[in-house]
Amino acid sequence: MSFLEYIKENKARYEDELISFLRIPSVSTEPSHDPETRRCAEFVRDELSRIGMDNVAIYETARHPVVFGQRLDAGEGAHTVLFYGHYDVQPVDPLNLWTNPPFEPTIVGDQIYARGASDDKGQVFLQLKALEALLKTEGKLPVNVKVIIEGEEEIGSPNLEPFLEKYREMLSCDTVLVSDTPMYDYGMPSLCYGLRGLCYMELEVTGPNRDLHSGSYGGVVENPINALSRIISKLKGEDGHILIDGFYDSVRSVEPEERKELARLPFDEAARKADLEVGTFTGEQDYSPLERIWARPTLDANGIWGGFAGSGAKTVLPSKAGAKVSMRLVPDQTPGEIAKLFEAYVKKITPPGVIVKVTDLHGGLPAVTPIDSAGVRAARRALKEVFGREPFLTREGGSIPIVNSFLKILEAPTVLMGFTMPDQNAHSPNEKMYLPGFHDGVRATALFYKELAKEAK
Amino acid sequence: MSFLEYIKENKARYEDELISFLRIPSVSTEPSHDPETRRCAEFVRDELSRIGMDNVAIYETARHPVVFGQRLDAGEGAHTVLFYGHYDVQPVDPLNLWTNPPFEPTIVGDQIYARGASDDKGQVFLQLKALEALLKTEGKLPVNVKVIIEGEEEIGSPNLEPFLEKYREMLSCDTVLVSDTPMYDYGMPSLCYGLRGLCYMELEVTGPNRDLHSGSYGGVVENPINALSRIISKLKGEDGHILIDGFYDSVRSVEPEERKELARLPFDEAARKADLEVGTFTGEQDYSPLERIWARPTLDANGIWGGFAGSGAKTVLPSKAGAKVSMRLVPDQTPGEIAKLFEAYVKKITPPGVIVKVTDLHGGLPAVTPIDSAGVRAARRALKEVFGREPFLTREGGSIPIVNSFLKILEAPTVLMGFTMPDQNAHSPNEKMYLPGFHDGVRATALFYKELAKEAK
Repeated sequence: MSFLEYIKENKARYEDELISFLRIPSVSTEPSHDPETRRCAEFVRDELSRIGMDNVAIYETARHPVVFGQRLDAGEGAHTVLFYGHYDVQPVDPLNLWTNPPFEPTIVGDQIYARGASDDKGQVFLQLKALEALLKTEGKLPVNVKVIIEGEEEIGSPNLEPFLEKYREMLSCDTVLVSDTPMYDYGMPSLCYGLRGLCYMELEVTGPNRDLHSGSYGGVVENPINALSRIISKLKGEDGHILIDGFYDSVRSVEPEERKELARLPFDEAARKADLEVGTFTGEQDYSPLERIWARPTLDANGIWGGFAGSGAKTVLPSKAGAKVSMRLVPDQTPGEIAKLFEAYVKKITPPGVIVKVTDLHGGLPAVTPIDSAGVRAARRALKEVFGREPFLTREGGSIPIVNSFLKILEAPTVLMGFTMPDQNAHSPNEKMYLPGFHDGVRATALFYKELAKEAK
Repeated sequence: MSFLEYIKENKARYEDELISFLRIPSVSTEPSHDPETRRCAEFVRDELSRIGMDNVAIYETARHPVVFGQRLDAGEGAHTVLFYGHYDVQPVDPLNLWTNPPFEPTIVGDQIYARGASDDKGQVFLQLKALEALLKTEGKLPVNVKVIIEGEEEIGSPNLEPFLEKYREMLSCDTVLVSDTPMYDYGMPSLCYGLRGLCYMELEVTGPNRDLHSGSYGGVVENPINALSRIISKLKGEDGHILIDGFYDSVRSVEPEERKELARLPFDEAARKADLEVGTFTGEQDYSPLERIWARPTLDANGIWGGFAGSGAKTVLPSKAGAKVSMRLVPDQTPGEIAKLFEAYVKKITPPGVIVKVTDLHGGLPAVTPIDSAGVRAARRALKEVFGREPFLTREGGSIPIVNSFLKILEAPTVLMGFTMPDQNAHSPNEKMYLPGFHDGVRATALFYKELAKEAK
């Protein structure tokens, strides 16, 4: 029996087992769920053993453990893939918005509803089922495969980097495979090859040393809210161009070939605007909306405060005002460098009469995987085989920090090959997974390993 | 005995009686104090009777009553002055910052400490003692005098306008006299002849219909905080000039004579900046700081909010952001007209992709009393007689709404002749009144009535 026949014959069992996995309420952020989260790690460990992985073990961390397994059948000359996923899930609040209980998986039509169905248990499980199909029909894997499934992704993976550092040798690999992103849409297979980075800053503007009566000092004392508004308004032009000196110096331009590829993707601007109830999309008009979201850096104020925000009128000239401002970065910008440019520019444009304190709160590197790597080539062929069409190459406007951890510590690029759909309510009530996508994912993953074996290392 | 001798002989008794007045905790905003506030109105009523006023009565309002009395000895051909004051006081919080209990008046050196000592019981009482001195020594007053002492000034005088409307005939007068402002400084008698008005607006900027992830939409969806910052930054130039179309059209210019008068006033800019810990004073450099505070319109954001204001980083692109923005007005600007200009201008400068809601929260007319009126001339002579120097003509950067009520309903200009000092902690812990100023005030007020009688009506 071929592995594809095996996958077809075992569909029902695969779904039953997925249901067992989804029943475990492994909410990592809630200490009251810790025993269940532990039980979930043990479920993954047992599953890895059952499908035939070697060296299966639970590795303790400061909080929730990482589950490991590997098969190194292909030998030293072959590719080594590290599959990464997570067995923990988001909290379920608000519970009253769920149609079915979040930990009682329910199939309605083609969708299975449960917390974690798409993020990330469904995707982890299809990966394991692909390995099972190959191992049970061929007795070995076509490339070397290592698996780590962590339990802290939904709380920011605080112990993943220490784990990668500690077991750097054991985890060494050529390619990291992650199934934690959606497809571009139903029937539209996609590979995500780019993520934006982040530089998140806080501003605090101080004027007088105490709140003043605006009647007594309005006209001579600089108002921190007015000053802060002026600063923010000078960070970005009305055309969406960021005005910080040197901001674009390291921005890798979007190549014509990539623009052509992105232009292939349907983007229903009218429908999106209607959904958000905005009259127009703004930003750099020289770039398409998808290019602006995925491939161009941006700047947004994420919060602002100062003075009197209650109801009615209070004539205060406040002592302080503050804001949070973040920038999404693209290669080859770095958060450290951008933070420096931001601070220098803010100091330059700060009006007289106030002082400004700039704090670097958080940063993450942007990441772009070369789209002509062995891993991406193998994934493209596998997806085309399963879906009958060339996969779309996509990027994400947000950040997935672990991708940079893998690059930094393991020196391996990541292939982001996901099989959920954009409407599957990850992090929201009524999370679901499209079951045909689950089975497509099993096949595509098995084919990916077969295709990768054909690539020169 | 002359009235001046009477005042001199009765100094000790005046202070004792003031202490009795200050003992009554007439905190108008606190319902638990209502019986005391009532008792305070009765104290004033009894005092008016005792000094010899006619038609003394308590007039009920929807909350705290107004106390009335009059003496119309001078007859129909003579000037009629309406003296206005208030017997209610501010709350005492934070109580722990008071050195002495706020309702146990304590004399330390030349100052008497108590809630209401300067605002406004001390000033009301010196007015009544001036009337007493004239009545007890001359048997009548040199001009007609009506007195209203209200109990709701510290809660915004909600029932004063209805009272003025209802008793318009009874209260008809040529001049209103108010003792509720400070002198410019110790030894510097002053008459306040100008108050700024107010136009207080609220802005609400709406972008998308829900909070978005800044990674998923940053670059195409206009950010309400960025948009709001842009709007606020365009309201006023860096030179302090307000950019709202037509804003200055009704601004009465500061005449050379007035500028000369204001320039006479000492203004220690270095000391003020050091006190507030600001490096520089901003605003319209063509005007002196006092001119900017008193005689020029200004614009200040009083509050701003939107998005995430907690600690740490949250990458939200918020649906809404808002701000409160107020403008101090000068003659002949009106809050209604300015609110319209403000809204039209804000709509004009609102960037695409957001909508803005503009709400007119509150307004007050500016007021300038003609400085060559009979009342002002009489007050100038009286103050010069008592203090040995020409009084300074001052304005206030804030607003005293009742001045416009008197103008509107009684069609009478107000003379603002105050005798407290700028350091007397009105509305703050350890409120006090400078006792020599109290006695100077008694004499100056009595002389004011005598001088006014010399003026043609």
